[in-house]
Amino acid sequence: MQIALAQLNYHVGNFEANTKKIIQAIAAAESKGAELVVFSELCVCGYPARDFLNYPHFIKQAENAIQKIAAATNEVAVLIGAPVVNPDIEGKDLFNAALWLQHGKVQKVFHKTLLPTYDVFDEYRYFEPNSKFELMELNGKKIAVTICEDIWNVGNENPLYTISPMDELIKLQPDFMVNLSASPFSYVQHEERMKVLKANVERYKIPLVYVNQIGAQTELIFDGGSVVMNEAGEVEKQLPFFEESIVVTDIGHRSLVISHQSSDTIQSIHAALVLGIRDYFSKLGFQKAVLGLSGGIDSAVVLCLAVEALGKENVLSVLLPSEYSSQHSIDDSLALVKNLQSSHEIVSIQPAYQAFLETMKPHFGNLPFNVAEENMQSRSRGLILMAFSNKFGYILLNTTNKSEAAVGYGTLYGDMCGGISVLGDVYKTQVYQLAEYINRNAEIIPHNIITKPPSAELRPNQKDSDSLPEYEVLDKILHAYIEAHKGIDEILAMGFDEALVQKVLRMVNMNEWKRFQAPPVLRVSPKSFGIGRRMPIEGKYLG
Amino acid sequence: MQIALAQLNYHVGNFEANTKKIIQAIAAAESKGAELVVFSELCVCGYPARDFLNYPHFIKQAENAIQKIAAATNEVAVLIGAPVVNPDIEGKDLFNAALWLQHGKVQKVFHKTLLPTYDVFDEYRYFEPNSKFELMELNGKKIAVTICEDIWNVGNENPLYTISPMDELIKLQPDFMVNLSASPFSYVQHEERMKVLKANVERYKIPLVYVNQIGAQTELIFDGGSVVMNEAGEVEKQLPFFEESIVVTDIGHRSLVISHQSSDTIQSIHAALVLGIRDYFSKLGFQKAVLGLSGGIDSAVVLCLAVEALGKENVLSVLLPSEYSSQHSIDDSLALVKNLQSSHEIVSIQPAYQAFLETMKPHFGNLPFNVAEENMQSRSRGLILMAFSNKFGYILLNTTNKSEAAVGYGTLYGDMCGGISVLGDVYKTQVYQLAEYINRNAEIIPHNIITKPPSAELRPNQKDSDSLPEYEVLDKILHAYIEAHKGIDEILAMGFDEALVQKVLRMVNMNEWKRFQAPPVLRVSPKSFGIGRRMPIEGKYLG
Repeated sequence: MQIALAQLNYHVGNFEANTKKIIQAIAAAESKGAELVVFSELCVCGYPARDFLNYPHFIKQAENAIQKIAAATNEVAVLIGAPVVNPDIEGKDLFNAALWLQHGKVQKVFHKTLLPTYDVFDEYRYFEPNSKFELMELNGKKIAVTICEDIWNVGNENPLYTISPMDELIKLQPDFMVNLSASPFSYVQHEERMKVLKANVERYKIPLVYVNQIGAQTELIFDGGSVVMNEAGEVEKQLPFFEESIVVTDIGHRSLVISHQSSDTIQSIHAALVLGIRDYFSKLGFQKAVLGLSGGIDSAVVLCLAVEALGKENVLSVLLPSEYSSQHSIDDSLALVKNLQSSHEIVSIQPAYQAFLETMKPHFGNLPFNVAEENMQSRSRGLILMAFSNKFGYILLNTTNKSEAAVGYGTLYGDMCGGISVLGDVYKTQVYQLAEYINRNAEIIPHNIITKPPSAELRPNQKDSDSLPEYEVLDKILHAYIEAHKGIDEILAMGFDEALVQKVLRMVNMNEWKRFQAPPVLRVSPKSFGIGRRMPIEGKYLG
Repeated sequence: MQIALAQLNYHVGNFEANTKKIIQAIAAAESKGAELVVFSELCVCGYPARDFLNYPHFIKQAENAIQKIAAATNEVAVLIGAPVVNPDIEGKDLFNAALWLQHGKVQKVFHKTLLPTYDVFDEYRYFEPNSKFELMELNGKKIAVTICEDIWNVGNENPLYTISPMDELIKLQPDFMVNLSASPFSYVQHEERMKVLKANVERYKIPLVYVNQIGAQTELIFDGGSVVMNEAGEVEKQLPFFEESIVVTDIGHRSLVISHQSSDTIQSIHAALVLGIRDYFSKLGFQKAVLGLSGGIDSAVVLCLAVEALGKENVLSVLLPSEYSSQHSIDDSLALVKNLQSSHEIVSIQPAYQAFLETMKPHFGNLPFNVAEENMQSRSRGLILMAFSNKFGYILLNTTNKSEAAVGYGTLYGDMCGGISVLGDVYKTQVYQLAEYINRNAEIIPHNIITKPPSAELRPNQKDSDSLPEYEVLDKILHAYIEAHKGIDEILAMGFDEALVQKVLRMVNMNEWKRFQAPPVLRVSPKSFGIGRRMPIEGKYLG
């Protein structure tokens, strides 16, 4: 059977654009000889639609879109993802569904059984789980239609669910499986996904057609990577990552097996962040970005990513020196914008900072210089960057990295400002790797930015290492605590100093209030700050 | 049977404090002759513990606490709430449990069946639902032990679940029901709760002992209001709202029926907000608050609430006049702090604002004054307030109301700064009602603050009504959209102007990015901004 995999980029709630794109893709697949076109999960309304799903009016728009797409179908069968109303009065009001459209109407509806409700996923918030199992019969073939998580409860050491939908469907003797997914990127996701797909074909001994979406929806970045896997667990087709693509393939006839695409971690993080920035701007309807360029590595990497995502003509760097800024910070920044041929402004924060110092003098008296004055500098910078944003319609890019965000090494309403956090899920040690990757062909980021010791430059001769452990050590502790959910006992067993570990975990927990007000973070790891990590602000656990 | 209802205030993750409090309550109940002491849901670890529950080390602490509490029990039976490990490898790793402790050990464990996963609740994120039903047998009585949501799927027009646990338990012929709850306040919650409890006793025809916690955990404020309801649906005991209380009652012997306590909406919102502020500070270990006093009604009401919650000696008001501030703003503010006998400072933002204007002049050129300059004023105020906070260890109280937050009428990093948003779930029209309530015995808030037209005073003669509809109209549209989830067609059917409704809904949806970075909001309505309302930032639905 000739099957088209439609791996596309949707916009949440933009029914008009999504419908148009789907109808065009059906026509394209038809012209390539497809008998069946498979789209990704909830493509009609976009994924994740979150609490828009609580609006009956939103669901009505989805129904209208389904009717419009159905009306555009003929001989070619289509599988699209959409929310549908649960006709039963009991249970949640919706199903997460795959709809088989053909000959101008909806032929059959399949419901999702396993509803991911962990990390960034909230599906049981909206959907009732499926409990009846049927196949799709098309042109003499029997097809098991599954939706994303439905095939993820196979081959796990610690299964999240007590059932596996394919265990039911396989009894009906399908010829192959189809899976409509919306499976977001993380730097371990491709490997995990291939493991899961393989576990399915090995268990059920039939081929699998897997269709994922691409594109970013604020924090979540979808990488595509749709595949056709034969019953031997070999990849017969592999669609590109981070790109729209429609590919037609013949299921059931052995085709050439392609080599398993291994993804380089830093390369894929780089591609994900570029797409994340690009879609944030395009889906909000903005073109231009502004950022503060400090001379440090974080803002340098963000600038390079932004230039790649938006074009050099659309990114303004603002250098914001103070009395504590070193000359090399300015020189290095200027060298970088020159390399990128992008524009910059230099705006001293000194007059504003001095005005605040004078203003606060009667209240601060002779109290020593401390974090209050440091934050006044950082917030003066935030204010100037937001002035550019407000006057000229730029979106401010936040440059905080994950290590800083974790321990609260940053100023709320200062360097924590921004519409989107580009590096908030990238540890400092990974930021260095990104810089090396950006420089893979030529020195874009000046060598000095990469090699100098990190500093916030908020007081004379300040270094990050004055208040934080070396990032090599810090990032290992943070990873153990945040990604691996290790307890303090297990982290100590890794060989770290006890006082240091206690200090770091305490800093992480004490700064939830700060991260609560941080911009959304482009997610590239299995555990990012934001919607996927929900922590009490006033929690007492571990300090 | 003599049953003690222990309605207490817990601290998430503070096992030491919670354990101590529970053991003391057991002793107190014992001294009052109780045979059974009932605590509230997940009291051992605090509710909601959120993603702390993903840490095996956290669960181990809970286990240790359970053992410690069990060891302190004797003849008196105890029911406590705690997370327990699911011994089955399949399914989620935890149960939300009620543990029967007696004679020094755990006698039996009951699991929660219905896991609320909507609004502010995420329970299926952590817990496997119960599937086996047993009673507790104590001193010749059979008790149906249920946890919170377990009794909420009775008497609903649109049931959220396909089962009701009590339908199973009633077959085992219990003498009465016990319910361990963690049910947060909203201004409709008391009425809803009484309706649900009544539906249960009417359906199952046995008495119900209902124990809720009190206290605030950041956004969520728990009001207690634990009750004993007899099989006729009459309230025999009613514990106080927003206060800790341990009451012993005799179940099965008719006692005096008390009059059903009706709660006044504004009075209960006032009490909730005071508790919300108090617990935010006490659980974070802070005493002192600072806020910007503008001369408007929002900051006036926040100041009064803060003084009641923290004491007049712990609240500093800062007046932050600019060239656009009217004299009455200053005079009214001074009259208010005088009435409250609390302290204030006057800090002009003029020097800082002028410095920013000068700094931006080369970049802004001759572009007209607009929101950029307005925001510079608001952000200069935010910066000064945060300078007080950083230098002296105050927490900044945010004064944004729900109407402003909804339409984005506020400056991010400016007047949207703060550790906690006191009025973020209170519409402007309700803020006026709160002011009247605060003035119920004497004029605390000067009359002029209540009667003058609202203004942000960021340009000459500015009024809120320049850019927004009258709050009487705006709040009705917002309520229809946010609380009632009405679509645009239904809102138009209420009789509002189409262009106006479109503008308002568009403003609500376009400002998700701003609210994303707002402080946590004390929740007093059934649908508050924050964790209970999860909206796409880049969503296109309704603009």
